Amino acid sequence: MDAAGHQVPDPYATTGVPQLGLRNYWYPVLAGWRLRRKPRAIKILGEEIVLYRDAGKIYALSDRCPHRGARLSQGKCLYPGSGTVSCPYHGWTFAGETGQCIAKIMEGPDAALPRRSHVKAYPVREHLGAIWVFVGDMEAVPLSDDLPECLADTNTWHGFSTWRTYRCNWRILKDNLCHDLHAPFLHRNAPELLLQPIFPYAAQISATPLKGGKGIGYSARDGISSAEYPGLGAFPPPQESWYRVLKPVGRGQEVGAAAPAVAKYGYQFRQSSLLPGITLIGRPSGNYFTCRWVTPIDADTTLYYSFSMFRRRGRLQTLRDRLAWIFWLSWMHDWLFSEQDKRILEKVVPGRELLSRSDIGVVAWRRFAVAHARRPPDVTSEPAANDEPALHSTAAE
Amino acid sequence: MDAAGHQVPDPYATTGVPQLGLRNYWYPVLAGWRLRRKPRAIKILGEEIVLYRDAGKIYALSDRCPHRGARLSQGKCLYPGSGTVSCPYHGWTFAGETGQCIAKIMEGPDAALPRRSHVKAYPVREHLGAIWVFVGDMEAVPLSDDLPECLADTNTWHGFSTWRTYRCNWRILKDNLCHDLHAPFLHRNAPELLLQPIFPYAAQISATPLKGGKGIGYSARDGISSAEYPGLGAFPPPQESWYRVLKPVGRGQEVGAAAPAVAKYGYQFRQSSLLPGITLIGRPSGNYFTCRWVTPIDADTTLYYSFSMFRRRGRLQTLRDRLAWIFWLSWMHDWLFSEQDKRILEKVVPGRELLSRSDIGVVAWRRFAVAHARRPPDVTSEPAANDEPALHSTAAE
Amino acid sequence: MDAAGHQVPDPYATTGVPQLGLRNYWYPVLAGWRLRRKPRAIKILGEEIVLYRDAGKIYALSDRCPHRGARLSQGKCLYPGSGTVSCPYHGWTFAGETGQCIAKIMEGPDAALPRRSHVKAYPVREHLGAIWVFVGDMEAVPLSDDLPECLADTNTWHGFSTWRTYRCNWRILKDNLCHDLHAPFLHRNAPELLLQPIFPYAAQISATPLKGGKGIGYSARDGISSAEYPGLGAFPPPQESWYRVLKPVGRGQEVGAAAPAVAKYGYQFRQSSLLPGITLIGRPSGNYFTCRWVTPIDADTTLYYSFSMFRRRGRLQTLRDRLAWIFWLSWMHDWLFSEQDKRILEKVVPGRELLSRSDIGVVAWRRFAVAHARRPPDVTSEPAANDEPALHSTAAE
Repeated sequence: MDAAGHQVPDPYATTGVPQLGLRNYWYPVLAGWRLRRKPRAIKILGEEIVLYRDAGKIYALSDRCPHRGARLSQGKCLYPGSGTVSCPYHGWTFAGETGQCIAKIMEGPDAALPRRSHVKAYPVREHLGAIWVFVGDMEAVPLSDDLPECLADTNTWHGFSTWRTYRCNWRILKDNLCHDLHAPFLHRNAPELLLQPIFPYAAQISATPLKGGKGIGYSARDGISSAEYPGLGAFPPPQESWYRVLKPVGRGQEVGAAAPAVAKYGYQFRQSSLLPGITLIGRPSGNYFTCRWVTPIDADTTLYYSFSMFRRRGRLQTLRDRLAWIFWLSWMHDWLFSEQDKRILEKVVPGRELLSRSDIGVVAWRRFAVAHARRPPDVTSEPAANDEPALHSTAAE
Repeated sequence: MDAAGHQVPDPYATTGVPQLGLRNYWYPVLAGWRLRRKPRAIKILGEEIVLYRDAGKIYALSDRCPHRGARLSQGKCLYPGSGTVSCPYHGWTFAGETGQCIAKIMEGPDAALPRRSHVKAYPVREHLGAIWVFVGDMEAVPLSDDLPECLADTNTWHGFSTWRTYRCNWRILKDNLCHDLHAPFLHRNAPELLLQPIFPYAAQISATPLKGGKGIGYSARDGISSAEYPGLGAFPPPQESWYRVLKPVGRGQEVGAAAPAVAKYGYQFRQSSLLPGITLIGRPSGNYFTCRWVTPIDADTTLYYSFSMFRRRGRLQTLRDRLAWIFWLSWMHDWLFSEQDKRILEKVVPGRELLSRSDIGVVAWRRFAVAHARRPPDVTSEPAANDEPALHSTAAE
Repeated sequence: MDAAGHQVPDPYATTGVPQLGLRNYWYPVLAGWRLRRKPRAIKILGEEIVLYRDAGKIYALSDRCPHRGARLSQGKCLYPGSGTVSCPYHGWTFAGETGQCIAKIMEGPDAALPRRSHVKAYPVREHLGAIWVFVGDMEAVPLSDDLPECLADTNTWHGFSTWRTYRCNWRILKDNLCHDLHAPFLHRNAPELLLQPIFPYAAQISATPLKGGKGIGYSARDGISSAEYPGLGAFPPPQESWYRVLKPVGRGQEVGAAAPAVAKYGYQFRQSSLLPGITLIGRPSGNYFTCRWVTPIDADTTLYYSFSMFRRRGRLQTLRDRLAWIFWLSWMHDWLFSEQDKRILEKVVPGRELLSRSDIGVVAWRRFAVAHARRPPDVTSEPAANDEPALHSTAAE
């Protein structure tokens, strides 16, 4: 839908991947510290949601009062401890757990409170410093079902997160993260890679389903790190070769059977795509992952939530990891490196594509997502938009 | 219509109240002092109009030259005293009274001036410091027909006016003014009410047609000023009770048979809604009214014109009333109090409503407006948009 | 198309003149000095184009990589001297002459480069300080075919150019330049004309096809410079008459059989309209022309490219002409005079017109354009948008 509310034809309709994201998954939506007492409006998968916190719990409700359409996010939690939010206009008060209207304050304590006076309640959790919301049409799965191990197991992993809003559809951003060999070109001069060899390119990409059916892992072989192009010259071009330094192994390397990631931890893939739009990229050591979540906001906007996760290996190493992130990775990677993508992706003109050998990972992701995306268990009885049973919502741990 | 000129489905179509306002009424459109020599463009009920002043009279014409589409509001009154405005592009000159083109300057004095070379002329008046325009498809009624007594009778009443532009449809603003019991909730902490008891709420609202068929009057009974809500607590909540001071009667009170408003002046209703979108709220004394006009601009914008009217009761009292308005009411009411509504109304998400007991006044207003709105006397022959006889326009007094 | 990408009905559809401009012509699009090493995005006739310069030549390609839709204007010429531009995303590299993809860098030197991996190449030239692009569906004609003599023959003429972007459709701007007699009204007080008599108006306009079929020339007779209008008074009105000075001949004068322009150079028309949207206005001396190009950008935006051309008459006269332009014409004409039009044209409300005697030149232009606009020679086989042979592009001289 465009700014004026018109349905615009989806330029990527033929991929089968839905424009507003895969439903029935948990998504990170906001850093926990950004939600204080005051209710806050967010939008994900095209749905407008109010988040609020009361007595240490977080609640997520549809952000439109069914009475006269006012926004609950302009209201407040008038009765602290009750887990409710009151509409600012006439005081309709909704239970955060169920979405049920439990008081119409201006109509007195004896007002009728029929079943239909409710708003949709979204399951919501706080985990790893982020607020997670389950958007869909079925009972929520446990949050941990949707998290890769490095995010789920906080005893083994610690880390940081950052976020950015991209002015493009979520699929354009997710495609960018499917090992499509843009990195050796677009990021070839990224300061983060200054001390590392150039990524190999022209590799044979293959995509393999992961155990558990949650995604696909990418592998690549036969990559090269330079070549001569007829009529043009070498790539990388001579004027960019001065900084090709000598370290023999680097980020471009595949995991390989001998890598610690495989030997110690069993990780087969350096890069993988998980449902609903997660990209997991690890180091061959198996001790570091970036886990990038793509949360659709609306058809033209996407929230990019990036977690940098370190394996806990003693307090000194934890300190070292933290310092490395704060003084190097946070701005070299989450800022400078990602900005190179953002600049291009926000200007992509959606439409017909001419997919090619380097897009094997993109195509594999699209097919996987269409085939394996979670669906509500009972598809025979379509629930009506406003009359479905409110979903159970549990507070953050 | 949205910004791009598309027809968007009217989210309140089922109410029957027209999206662009009720036609065939007078509307206040601009403070008189804001119109000087230079023509000025306004828009009301979706129609673009040029206002100009010449020799003490005000004229209102459709703001598009039929020749090549230039805006008359960019032209000027080239022949002072003639009551005409000349298009800036080729000098087509239109009579303000009739809209007829009486000269095509660039074609010389002998140019053909056929009947169809005209623009729509709108009846216009200046009254009480405001410029009023009649928008419709019939001969204008006298302005006084459309004014409540406190605006019409300047011998008995004096007052002030202020205006604001709201970024919402006019119906959202007018609904807000139908005694819908939002006030005891939304305005419960308004500084204006600091020295008054809290409004009663949970009242039984009823709406009664006014004599003369111009609107409905609201009455309310059995209201309460506090109650206990199961599972929540008291409303007003304890943290807001410190400023419930002791004055026994206040704004929320109904007029009542003994009130001076009834006894002396015969006013039965404290609050009433008049066609085409007027809200009249009086004090029990009968000596003060706020009269709020809702003038539709376009589907998403509304001009809110608020008159504060005092009964003339001697020169000293007039001075007192003026000082009270200038130093208290103007900013406490027209600014702070109204801002509480504006903040909510501009964020309302139009769409399906779940009307309830407190909306009796809203529903009554909608039904009344649909049933009693003025219609052109002859509805059998639909006049063509551009060929209807120009309406007679008389100048301000 | 509006900002949101919707097809809006063309308000001037009945004229037959296309909303996005006449195809198959050369258009000036950018001052040459504004294109340096960095590729630059432009839009003309609704088409998005990247311009870049390599080894002294300029290239113009469609600004969307067919691979994944990134903008070539965000890429760069990675191999200087090759005349190529590389997509910033995966390094697809396109030959500027043909638009063919000649390397997919991330896929290695042996990547398949099928015929369909190409973008549209636009013929482009640099001439008279401007970059010219041929937009259409046929092989480009020589640039000189589309230039009036004063722009084509740089041995005889020298001059300056300026440009402005107008927020209106190109037809509204071009209509303004069809000798429609708006000048004696709209520009009657232009400072540029301070020392010249008022333009004659109420003239009998006629339009005559030019030799060679490239446009029409306007002539006017029986104009007057003042008249009395019944009920209004004189035009120009008395308050504007003080600056009617005495010089007996001026800008408004037609060329006339005895004028040097006719006697020496054979120019019959003071003002003419040439395809695809050029206006040529000369002085009776035949030694000066303003040549105004209207380049459609999109449905609501137009690039106005104005050339002021002086006949070369010795080095001293050239110096005098240059000084006259720099210190007088550039701001009096290209700035102040044109601003009077721009202000009106950008506010024109497109829609139904009531054309009149003064619009004879406008109507003649529209008819001429519809009847004589260049068409691709072979209209039987419609070329597919993305599979047509790339057009030959030669560099600037």
